[in-house]
Amino acid sequence: MIAPVGNGPARTATAVTLRDVARVAGVHPATVSRALNAETRALVNRETAERVLRAAESLGYRPNPIARGLKTNRSYTVGVLIPDITNPLFPPIVRGIEDRLEESAYTPLVANTDNDPEREQVDLAAMRARQVDAFITATARDDHAFLLDLVAAGLPVVLVNRGVQDGSLPAVTPDDRLGMRQAVEHVVALGHRRIAHLGGPHELSTGHRRHEGFAAAMRDAGLPVQDVLVGSGRRFTAQEGYRLCRELLAADRSFTAIVAGNDLMALGCYDALGEAGLRCPRDVSIVGFNDMRFADRFNPPLTTVRVPHYEIGAQAADLLLERIADSSGPPRHIELPTELVIRGSTAPAPTGGER
Amino acid sequence: MIAPVGNGPARTATAVTLRDVARVAGVHPATVSRALNAETRALVNRETAERVLRAAESLGYRPNPIARGLKTNRSYTVGVLIPDITNPLFPPIVRGIEDRLEESAYTPLVANTDNDPEREQVDLAAMRARQVDAFITATARDDHAFLLDLVAAGLPVVLVNRGVQDGSLPAVTPDDRLGMRQAVEHVVALGHRRIAHLGGPHELSTGHRRHEGFAAAMRDAGLPVQDVLVGSGRRFTAQEGYRLCRELLAADRSFTAIVAGNDLMALGCYDALGEAGLRCPRDVSIVGFNDMRFADRFNPPLTTVRVPHYEIGAQAADLLLERIADSSGPPRHIELPTELVIRGSTAPAPTGGER
Repeated sequence: MIAPVGNGPARTATAVTLRDVARVAGVHPATVSRALNAETRALVNRETAERVLRAAESLGYRPNPIARGLKTNRSYTVGVLIPDITNPLFPPIVRGIEDRLEESAYTPLVANTDNDPEREQVDLAAMRARQVDAFITATARDDHAFLLDLVAAGLPVVLVNRGVQDGSLPAVTPDDRLGMRQAVEHVVALGHRRIAHLGGPHELSTGHRRHEGFAAAMRDAGLPVQDVLVGSGRRFTAQEGYRLCRELLAADRSFTAIVAGNDLMALGCYDALGEAGLRCPRDVSIVGFNDMRFADRFNPPLTTVRVPHYEIGAQAADLLLERIADSSGPPRHIELPTELVIRGSTAPAPTGGER
Repeated sequence: MIAPVGNGPARTATAVTLRDVARVAGVHPATVSRALNAETRALVNRETAERVLRAAESLGYRPNPIARGLKTNRSYTVGVLIPDITNPLFPPIVRGIEDRLEESAYTPLVANTDNDPEREQVDLAAMRARQVDAFITATARDDHAFLLDLVAAGLPVVLVNRGVQDGSLPAVTPDDRLGMRQAVEHVVALGHRRIAHLGGPHELSTGHRRHEGFAAAMRDAGLPVQDVLVGSGRRFTAQEGYRLCRELLAADRSFTAIVAGNDLMALGCYDALGEAGLRCPRDVSIVGFNDMRFADRFNPPLTTVRVPHYEIGAQAADLLLERIADSSGPPRHIELPTELVIRGSTAPAPTGGER
């Protein structure tokens, strides 16, 4: 039996959720939460509160997570591992996860691993000591045997933002290849031919898939991918974008466009080009990836590929709730479409040879 | 007896922490965590692991939070209420809280209230159902009787970023008055005399203290505070900054500088001035507040008042751990100093009358 996407039979086997009660009562889940809690019931209009209570009773909903935990041996907590909440990518992902888990009365425990595998192990151990029911992790690398161990121990794991190459774990990611195609096609349409790609680490799916997407789109446009114009950083940071762009400028100055691995790397390219006396977009066009907050405020405003981070977080939480209810069946992989956002960092290719 | 700031006797009465073990063993707390956990011990050099185990034993440290919880009737979780993790102010505050709590083996549970008092009540109730030991909240308004109820119920509360006017709760905040003085003195030194203040809501300490700081600094500079040049927004957002700046432009165009309530409001001022055909900083200088991430990347780069958000979060966690150990004694209020960061949005006042 194949589960229909997003609302499979696994879902119906799970406990009644706050959202179910909300649907039956015709109110927002937050209203259900208020109405069911004696301490907050007074905040809800009396008639609405009564409707919610009737709906909860008819569905057999149990609101108290501790009470539920005692009955089902669940803690109703989910461990969420991210590299760093101060990286602007992660707040909307975490917010999407939290909002969706909250509707099912699950609580996320968030830990920052700083992309340090040792720290990740410590955080995982601490979360297991707290008896979390499952994990969502944004820290996947291709070396992920320890995640499969968690699954084997009965703890569902869902990957968010980054997937793994062997497809062994469920994941919700951006469609990185599509995004790079959108970026490349945009600069090709502007007349650029010598196009560089300065991307992230290859052991992260966001690094290797974007590199693959770049190569495929260049090939389809009939353009060569030249080794000298492709760089791979150790991290997705402005510092690494700056370093790679300086190396590129030292090696070859014929390029007229850079498709960066993400927005932070694009900012590093701004800096390196500026130091070299080149102007963006007059001399070199730059495309980022993510459309992180304030990308529209940079100088120049950054043309980039928008990733729906909040939605990626929300769908990862949904997928995890599915796996908690029924972890049989092959892992699902959801890729959410990206969208090109054209701003001031891209312009027609300069004419007349080498700029 | 007066507790010395930052390391009072309350601290010595608390349980032995991971940090204590780290100090005795002469290693980083993360190393202690690894060494004490059987699953991660292999990650640590054998000699170091033995030193840590000896230190832990001699101090009587108990690493497992669940085991500790059973003995002491604590959950070793702390509820953290923030308006919204996607507001760039809060990730560094949360990171500071998390890093410091982790060292004492406490786990934060973070909830986003969206500055909605009803949602805040729901989140509080959910956290109480999870039996958190204490709260840190960044959502304080002057109406905060419910927080005093928590304290009366034996749940310590520490305010972070925002305080309350009556001083009834311990708090770690920026020195908002000092920050506004730094902003005003900077534009006064540049020759500005007609200076506007477009700030946040007065029922938030960050709103009213910055307003007070503005008024005091203007007075000390011998300049009048004119009603027409002072506005107060409903929220600390770019939209409100934009709205207030448009109202200001409609009412009076003689001002040459705006001291904004925060960086987002300053961005809204950029937009409103641009629409009115005025250039920043040539026609109007603008100062922000916070030095949030990417303020240096805006166009123009924003002159602003830097607030040490990570440190504010870390000190709030320290203060909470103090209160958990001993909640007697008056609430302490810690104000951390701010620092002016001069960038491209401020310039000498235009000469020749009305610009």
